[in-house]
Amino acid sequence: MAEENVIFVGKKPTMNYVLAVVTQFNNNIDRIVIKARGKAISKAVDIAEITRHKFIQTAKYEDIKVETEVLHGERGDSNVSSIEITLKR
Amino acid sequence: MAEENVIFVGKKPTMNYVLAVVTQFNNNIDRIVIKARGKAISKAVDIAEITRHKFIQTAKYEDIKVETEVLHGERGDSNVSSIEITLKR
Repeated sequence: MAEENVIFVGKKPTMNYVLAVVTQFNNNIDRIVIKARGKAISKAVDIAEITRHKFIQTAKYEDIKVETEVLHGERGDSNVSSIEITLKR
Repeated sequence: MAEENVIFVGKKPTMNYVLAVVTQFNNNIDRIVIKARGKAISKAVDIAEITRHKFIQTAKYEDIKVETEVLHGERGDSNVSSIEITLKR
């Protein structure tokens, strides 16, 4: 059950993820982690800000972490930045 | 003097900004704020992570803030997310 409040940001439109976050808050989950890598990091920040300003005004940033992940690919390893935004209400 | 340790991330290559951050740390400035808006947010995270992993291993995240800025344009206002990453060593 520990992972069910994690939203992984990918290629879908921003509002799809906002809806997922808002739905979880409305299902009485009070802490949600938004995770993204690479270019999706900007989208993760948008998702968190839209959620806070338009839908769940009581949500606050509990933590924002950034780190580097190593991806193992066919052509060798590559580094990619990642972000984890924890929203709590 | 208060603003001289702020790096605004724009359209230049990532390594240009990394070099600017590293140069400031090497000039005995011990706290640098990396600011970015919109799609440049991902680049700001890359800049901070590359600085920490490849150049200034003693640099730590002191604070990471995200917020929404309102841009006043000819066709009306628009919202854009922004990030402020404070690195300290």
